[in-house]
Amino acid sequence: MKNKFVAYIESLQDRITSTLEKIDGEAVFQEDLWQREEGGGGRTRVIENGAVFEKGGVNISKVFGKLPKSLQENFQVDEANFFACGLSLVLHPKNPFVPTVHANWRYFEMYDADGNIVTQWFGGGQDLTPYYLFEEDAVHFHTTCKEACDKHDGSFYPKYKKQCDNYFWNAHRDEARGVGGLFFDYLKANEDFSMEDRYNFTTEIGDSFLHSYVPIVERRKDMKYNQTHKDWQEVRRGRYVEFNLVHDKGTLFGLKTNGRIESILMSLPPTVQWKYNHVPEAGTKEAALIDVLKSPKDWV
Amino acid sequence: MKNKFVAYIESLQDRITSTLEKIDGEAVFQEDLWQREEGGGGRTRVIENGAVFEKGGVNISKVFGKLPKSLQENFQVDEANFFACGLSLVLHPKNPFVPTVHANWRYFEMYDADGNIVTQWFGGGQDLTPYYLFEEDAVHFHTTCKEACDKHDGSFYPKYKKQCDNYFWNAHRDEARGVGGLFFDYLKANEDFSMEDRYNFTTEIGDSFLHSYVPIVERRKDMKYNQTHKDWQEVRRGRYVEFNLVHDKGTLFGLKTNGRIESILMSLPPTVQWKYNHVPEAGTKEAALIDVLKSPKDWV
Repeated sequence: MKNKFVAYIESLQDRITSTLEKIDGEAVFQEDLWQREEGGGGRTRVIENGAVFEKGGVNISKVFGKLPKSLQENFQVDEANFFACGLSLVLHPKNPFVPTVHANWRYFEMYDADGNIVTQWFGGGQDLTPYYLFEEDAVHFHTTCKEACDKHDGSFYPKYKKQCDNYFWNAHRDEARGVGGLFFDYLKANEDFSMEDRYNFTTEIGDSFLHSYVPIVERRKDMKYNQTHKDWQEVRRGRYVEFNLVHDKGTLFGLKTNGRIESILMSLPPTVQWKYNHVPEAGTKEAALIDVLKSPKDWV
Repeated sequence: MKNKFVAYIESLQDRITSTLEKIDGEAVFQEDLWQREEGGGGRTRVIENGAVFEKGGVNISKVFGKLPKSLQENFQVDEANFFACGLSLVLHPKNPFVPTVHANWRYFEMYDADGNIVTQWFGGGQDLTPYYLFEEDAVHFHTTCKEACDKHDGSFYPKYKKQCDNYFWNAHRDEARGVGGLFFDYLKANEDFSMEDRYNFTTEIGDSFLHSYVPIVERRKDMKYNQTHKDWQEVRRGRYVEFNLVHDKGTLFGLKTNGRIESILMSLPPTVQWKYNHVPEAGTKEAALIDVLKSPKDWV
């Protein structure tokens, strides 16, 4: 299973980066291969200063070895060996009308002293963070997510959509990071689904990513914008930073497993502003975004 | 003691903001009074877009009531009432040759069921974060700190200097936030020092702040700089954000005690950049700063 999923994310990374390069038309991804001292490594691909993508990363990694002490409590185990692999991506477009997107699909195994798998699961999801709200974009993104889910089980979309709203909640700001998408974790085998089913579902979601995001980029990337729009984008990117550094378990996992810092923090936006107590005027498009973030809605 | 220290930080806030306004010459501090639902409140003063200070806050607060559950473990107590007050300041100058500075002086009390004080302590410190290293600035800052400490006990400066280096260590970057200063906490009464001694020491340090920082601002604020300097300042400000959101216990305390978010996060810089894997060229002034941050040195 682990080799199959590693091969999948390697191929998906290729598909995603080549598609994004075509859309951008100017910048290309720079690749960095890195090794983790305790076991494993990764292939980081970062794009910067593009015509469409101001900054973005599409990274795969595969880490294994002794489970770090700091994670034993998380997983409620004592000493154990683990294996984890996944693809993580974050794209920060230049044009404030193009939403930022994040996605991650991952697989995890833990072993007993004899090297037998004692537990294994898939996790992942994708979520959209607009700076200006175009309802049709949120609807398109969620519809694509729902269609991919529905091929597997009718309960998946409502459940994982809700988990996404809960996970990407910027608690100290009392608002969502964006308009959500899907979030699922600890997908283990049970009486209804085999690990093979879990693999098929996770890769179905991975395959749906470009369909969910690319059409939105295509219709927004050439829209005219001014400095007010750009300032607002940069202020909202500040909230993105706050979420990732204060609340995001994925970032924390990376820091705690001695991950490669630059690969983990590629998620941070290129230019960011923090203004004191910045509240958009009522009735503006900026205020309309906040309204939606304060109480996540159903888009499909 | 608590009323005496509250009066002190109120007056110190006035002294600091009026001095900084004179230096800036253009912008003035905007004041926001706020109340905390569970007890207490604060007086936040923020300056933005000044000639010298691009963004800064000099805030006092006084919070009390039931110790939040999330802090019971920190203080190794069960249910208890507490009182905390302090002055916190962060100044982000516009000119990249002027260092950012942070300072905080605070007092804490905890009570038994009958309202008697069971424990009380002072804490605080001040630390300097340059973007370009001028050794004479670091020496001046530390000398001022040392002189204030030495009036009370010869052991204080080396001890609190070291604690500062340890506390402001940006672990995931394996570098210091800046060139340090002082950090002290849990200054309780003991056989050598009364609470009155602790008060006198903490206020001595508070009084020394303007002497430690203002001369540095005066000698750097009119230095010519270009976009390369500004970019470097903004990249380094990113490290400041990372420290405050990932590691800083003060920020965490604020978020956990349902503090006023905008007053806590006034510490975040106005404009910030994250470039992927940005490493300054060997032999440059930018690289020289990193060298010093990698292994904190003795400035006095």
